[in-house]
Amino acid sequence: MSERPSPDAGLLSPVRAGTAVEAVTSDEAFLRGMLDAEAALARAQAGLGLVPAPAAEAIGRLCEKIEPDVVEVARRARGAGNPLVPLLADLRAAADPSISRYIHRGATSQDIVDTAAMLVAARAREIVLRDLDRVLGALAGLAAAHRDTPMAGRTLGQHAVPITFGLKAAGWLLGVLEARTALREARTPAQLGGAAGTLEGLGPAGLIDAFAAELGLAPAVLPWHTRRTPVTALGAALAAVTGALGKIAQDVVLLAQNEVGEVAEPSAPGRGGSSAMAHKRNPVLSIMIRSAAAQAPALTAILHSCAATAEHERPAGGWHAEWQPLRECLRLAGGAAETAAELCEGLEVFPARMRENLETTGELSGGLGASADLVERALEAYRRDR
Amino acid sequence: MSERPSPDAGLLSPVRAGTAVEAVTSDEAFLRGMLDAEAALARAQAGLGLVPAPAAEAIGRLCEKIEPDVVEVARRARGAGNPLVPLLADLRAAADPSISRYIHRGATSQDIVDTAAMLVAARAREIVLRDLDRVLGALAGLAAAHRDTPMAGRTLGQHAVPITFGLKAAGWLLGVLEARTALREARTPAQLGGAAGTLEGLGPAGLIDAFAAELGLAPAVLPWHTRRTPVTALGAALAAVTGALGKIAQDVVLLAQNEVGEVAEPSAPGRGGSSAMAHKRNPVLSIMIRSAAAQAPALTAILHSCAATAEHERPAGGWHAEWQPLRECLRLAGGAAETAAELCEGLEVFPARMRENLETTGELSGGLGASADLVERALEAYRRDR
Amino acid sequence: MSERPSPDAGLLSPVRAGTAVEAVTSDEAFLRGMLDAEAALARAQAGLGLVPAPAAEAIGRLCEKIEPDVVEVARRARGAGNPLVPLLADLRAAADPSISRYIHRGATSQDIVDTAAMLVAARAREIVLRDLDRVLGALAGLAAAHRDTPMAGRTLGQHAVPITFGLKAAGWLLGVLEARTALREARTPAQLGGAAGTLEGLGPAGLIDAFAAELGLAPAVLPWHTRRTPVTALGAALAAVTGALGKIAQDVVLLAQNEVGEVAEPSAPGRGGSSAMAHKRNPVLSIMIRSAAAQAPALTAILHSCAATAEHERPAGGWHAEWQPLRECLRLAGGAAETAAELCEGLEVFPARMRENLETTGELSGGLGASADLVERALEAYRRDR
Amino acid sequence: MSERPSPDAGLLSPVRAGTAVEAVTSDEAFLRGMLDAEAALARAQAGLGLVPAPAAEAIGRLCEKIEPDVVEVARRARGAGNPLVPLLADLRAAADPSISRYIHRGATSQDIVDTAAMLVAARAREIVLRDLDRVLGALAGLAAAHRDTPMAGRTLGQHAVPITFGLKAAGWLLGVLEARTALREARTPAQLGGAAGTLEGLGPAGLIDAFAAELGLAPAVLPWHTRRTPVTALGAALAAVTGALGKIAQDVVLLAQNEVGEVAEPSAPGRGGSSAMAHKRNPVLSIMIRSAAAQAPALTAILHSCAATAEHERPAGGWHAEWQPLRECLRLAGGAAETAAELCEGLEVFPARMRENLETTGELSGGLGASADLVERALEAYRRDR
Repeated sequence: MSERPSPDAGLLSPVRAGTAVEAVTSDEAFLRGMLDAEAALARAQAGLGLVPAPAAEAIGRLCEKIEPDVVEVARRARGAGNPLVPLLADLRAAADPSISRYIHRGATSQDIVDTAAMLVAARAREIVLRDLDRVLGALAGLAAAHRDTPMAGRTLGQHAVPITFGLKAAGWLLGVLEARTALREARTPAQLGGAAGTLEGLGPAGLIDAFAAELGLAPAVLPWHTRRTPVTALGAALAAVTGALGKIAQDVVLLAQNEVGEVAEPSAPGRGGSSAMAHKRNPVLSIMIRSAAAQAPALTAILHSCAATAEHERPAGGWHAEWQPLRECLRLAGGAAETAAELCEGLEVFPARMRENLETTGELSGGLGASADLVERALEAYRRDR
Repeated sequence: MSERPSPDAGLLSPVRAGTAVEAVTSDEAFLRGMLDAEAALARAQAGLGLVPAPAAEAIGRLCEKIEPDVVEVARRARGAGNPLVPLLADLRAAADPSISRYIHRGATSQDIVDTAAMLVAARAREIVLRDLDRVLGALAGLAAAHRDTPMAGRTLGQHAVPITFGLKAAGWLLGVLEARTALREARTPAQLGGAAGTLEGLGPAGLIDAFAAELGLAPAVLPWHTRRTPVTALGAALAAVTGALGKIAQDVVLLAQNEVGEVAEPSAPGRGGSSAMAHKRNPVLSIMIRSAAAQAPALTAILHSCAATAEHERPAGGWHAEWQPLRECLRLAGGAAETAAELCEGLEVFPARMRENLETTGELSGGLGASADLVERALEAYRRDR
Repeated sequence: MSERPSPDAGLLSPVRAGTAVEAVTSDEAFLRGMLDAEAALARAQAGLGLVPAPAAEAIGRLCEKIEPDVVEVARRARGAGNPLVPLLADLRAAADPSISRYIHRGATSQDIVDTAAMLVAARAREIVLRDLDRVLGALAGLAAAHRDTPMAGRTLGQHAVPITFGLKAAGWLLGVLEARTALREARTPAQLGGAAGTLEGLGPAGLIDAFAAELGLAPAVLPWHTRRTPVTALGAALAAVTGALGKIAQDVVLLAQNEVGEVAEPSAPGRGGSSAMAHKRNPVLSIMIRSAAAQAPALTAILHSCAATAEHERPAGGWHAEWQPLRECLRLAGGAAETAAELCEGLEVFPARMRENLETTGELSGGLGASADLVERALEAYRRDR
Repeated sequence: MSERPSPDAGLLSPVRAGTAVEAVTSDEAFLRGMLDAEAALARAQAGLGLVPAPAAEAIGRLCEKIEPDVVEVARRARGAGNPLVPLLADLRAAADPSISRYIHRGATSQDIVDTAAMLVAARAREIVLRDLDRVLGALAGLAAAHRDTPMAGRTLGQHAVPITFGLKAAGWLLGVLEARTALREARTPAQLGGAAGTLEGLGPAGLIDAFAAELGLAPAVLPWHTRRTPVTALGAALAAVTGALGKIAQDVVLLAQNEVGEVAEPSAPGRGGSSAMAHKRNPVLSIMIRSAAAQAPALTAILHSCAATAEHERPAGGWHAEWQPLRECLRLAGGAAETAAELCEGLEVFPARMRENLETTGELSGGLGASADLVERALEAYRRDR
């Protein structure tokens, strides 16, 4: 193994190891986001005549081509408590003296770090939403195909009256639909306020909007250094995503039990194996999704707690405590969504076994009520929101 | 003290003891909500010709006049794991035999308990929103009045460049505004699905809408017995409320320190006293608000976790784990809002002391940047949303 | 329903409604604990000659016979942010002027409230430990009786190689044993420090020990107003209890599924019923236990967070945020333990069905390894610790 | 930046970036722990005559020299949901056919992954304990040196009666002492049970002890695949560590405020700088410690939740959800301890300023009570436990 201090590659988080969301949420992606923010600030200031246009262009080029040493920046971050300070030092060291003073002009570390976090979040969200679309498509297909497939309803762990598998899938569909809406609507504003949020030395209030526009992020009414709504709302939406997917995974694990056998995960070479029993087929996709769903709620609680104690104009620790949990939420939601897409698109359903199980508690074999109509209601909601 | 098993009256939660929200979230209020739901179900079924109109009316009268013994219902709830089962037994025992079979016709406990929770939540929300309006009004007044009052900006615990107190108040205002929006928009749907969510024995899919309309609640697309979005979204919104108020309280506690002395809580007879030091004036309102803000995040994490593991058609424990945390969130948010209204409406601000402190780090006495314009942006956002 | 503001009787928490632990953790029990603490303080001070012995006796009698109005004390607690201040006012008002000045002499609210919390915790713990002993006895019996009863081992939701039911029960046993140890060892010290923890006006350092001895609580080295180890350690132990019991309940719910049918909860009149399906038998005891296990972890996180931010000599909100979560942990653990005792003592086990299920995946019917020896190891550990 | 998928180097967690604990908790360290466990298993089985001694030696050499590709192993972990399966494949592929069948003989993935986690935890703990010793030494020095240095006691954010700085430091000392005890006493047992915990195909019950002895870990009475006490107890101890250190950091941030100015963090070149205000001196060490203390409590709640739902003989997701939070707790505690050692060893204390502040509320300048004796009690407790 390498001599360099060894970084984390997702070994302890298979749900997101190697997924698309991992790449856009890496340490390097955060650094790149900070550089994008610095470049955009210079451009926005140039647009308002506060920085010479050629300087802004030069800063942009510099930010694009510089290749900071992530490991070293991370370590040097301990000096100021955040990674922007050493990154900025590198940037200024690499800059032509004539442009150096236009870099980060009037800004504060938190402007850049928060903006980078929102850039990363916005990029990760695109990936999550794309995978949720796949999940939704697959679930809509299952709901329609099995609209009239009877199976045992199960409440409090016991057979209740019958339902249809289509109705179960319709419930999954609606849950994911609601989570998608929450995620889509979470605002990801740029952050800009300067040393204490007054824009002193930065520019007029309108610079907030110009800066956001440069980055394709939402504008904020005020700097949100200690008004952490964007972070908590994003966290809540991501927990909604892992929650909706976790519910599906929970059901699949239960339905795939040997004694139940009503569904099976899609098989794939090398999937679901065991180190002890070669013949065993584990519901690995669901297990990974559940591992994400078990972590996100507590992580969002950290975000809420930090928001509630964000003192004065910059929190002394509460801000710093957000970074890792927010990134982890993005990764868990992203990993869960990519995994769930594979699960839902390939889920095997066994109607004969469903009927067989249903008949073991035959006295319960009543009618299916409005199951079919309910499936249609859910599909209609899905179509409206597409 | 009484011989009866002693109930809780808020002794361990001063932030909500005796507040308006406490009354509408009591055990009795939940029981009353269940009775309201049973009555509404009969009416809705009567509207669709499924129950004779006179029976529905009789059920309505019965639900209104019955006075269940809360303590006994709570204890008997252990038999089925939920309080609706003993309440229903009481209801049926008190009913004329001719109407008994129309009570709870086709419904399941969770339909009634969840609907009662949403009724309670909706009523509590009105109170919280009303108090948040008071908070917003007071903060808008502070922001406007102190638009140009300079004070030290403080970041990471240290003086930074100056800000205005108006800008600080504007940040508080915007935080509460965002939380109010989240709370206002959280849906509180009625729950109706029957034994396994198919409406079997209950009525057609349209009964969901009719039932909701009877209660003034939102209709659900599908039963949400194991799709807990309404609960998690409500929890997240309530944590946003305690978070926004907690941020204000955090700042007030710090600004009211003896060495800082820039604000003081409104004084009132008997407020802020100490059992050890008669002369001491503690920021009690802020302290109580902070106690709420410290609890809500973890409570919402419970709600998210329960949602992520809500198996099959009714969870075996995860549902039951939601009730107390959801109620607690309502009470903490309600108590915090009522307390914050009192705090913000009476907050004493000391501009001279602000200036004095600012001057101790005189080298920092730079300009105020766009503070005034930022205050106006926030006030404009407030006016738009009123 | 009563005209008085309605208190909570456990309607939303069936796991503890009417259990033995509820009575000793009520608001009234906390008030009684505070009165016990005041009386003990006077006695301890009298023992050191700081208070006249007759005054201490009179205070003791007063504390015993006074019957404060819990609801009113709770509301008046909003004045100072804690319930001791109004309680003390009542106590002084009721006292003969000659003894009034010896009441609460030199103490601070937190001395009395924290001590009351530890008294309540110590009393509740006795109950929990007694019920855990019942659980342990029952589990040891199951482990011994089924030492050689084969059943399917199940990993990742799928049949693995066979185990014995005795081994499963031995695992449950060991988990409860470890939790019992943690709970038994959690220290519950008296709190005494005075206004800022220096004992100024109270007495010498040795008064800490004398006060603790009066109450049968552990002595603290120093006042722990802002060193919250006793609270967090207790919380962690209580979460260990609900966790160990939750694991059992989790397994029972799964084993009791219709398709599995390997165990059943003890039946009792009125237990496990459904409001929708009269014939259904729900694993209600396990469900209630799981509802406790789903809440305690997040509640202990609140306690840990409060400890980590306990500023200076008394926290401005973080202390107040502990009371309700700590009480809730005591109740959830107590309710879960009482419920688990009933569950484990009456659990029905179906060896024939276990064998039947095992044979459905016959290729797995390998040996039982060291199952029997492992059961013996667990029983031996139990015997050693009895 | 590199073409390889970018790993995390601590950029978002300055509290632990580059600290000693980071190196021993890396992905590579976990892989190395798994290899150590495989080698120890072969040796332990050889000791019992179950595996030929030369084969065990060959396995040991192989495990030592193999250099798996962490990134690839992480990705391939998605196939089985855990990293041991692909690592084992690599190991077997690299092994001489004659020894291949003796590798991982009778074991299950969880045996190896859990054992690796405990090895990593045990190594990390050594580092944390060493740094806590430094913290304790420094605090004992501060307590002794300032035993009689008066300063304002502060409760609920306000001046109370005076204390001494020595007493404050003594309280910090005792908190860290208690946390050290909890961490030292947390057991880190080896895990060994085979496919379903019966040791089938592995060896006799005594192999558990032999395996643990090979690794210098504690022996377990039974396999703990779904009895997660070691994980939760470790998590609780680590939260106690970050909590005790977080309390110190909280106080330092408050005491270092410009208006208070009673302590300052040790200065160092490049420390505490600001990207916006070159002259500012931020309490960066405390801020980083607080960032750790704000995260650990919720992470331990995840561990407790997973324990409470660990179904059957291996959890379907709950196990997988533990890995990252446990590692994160180790890192946060380790980073916080290393940072706190630097903070406490170099803390600057300003008695004159303490006196000055104390005098501003002169009417409070009462006596110091038993402060000096209390300091001695704490120092005595420290000496006893050294």
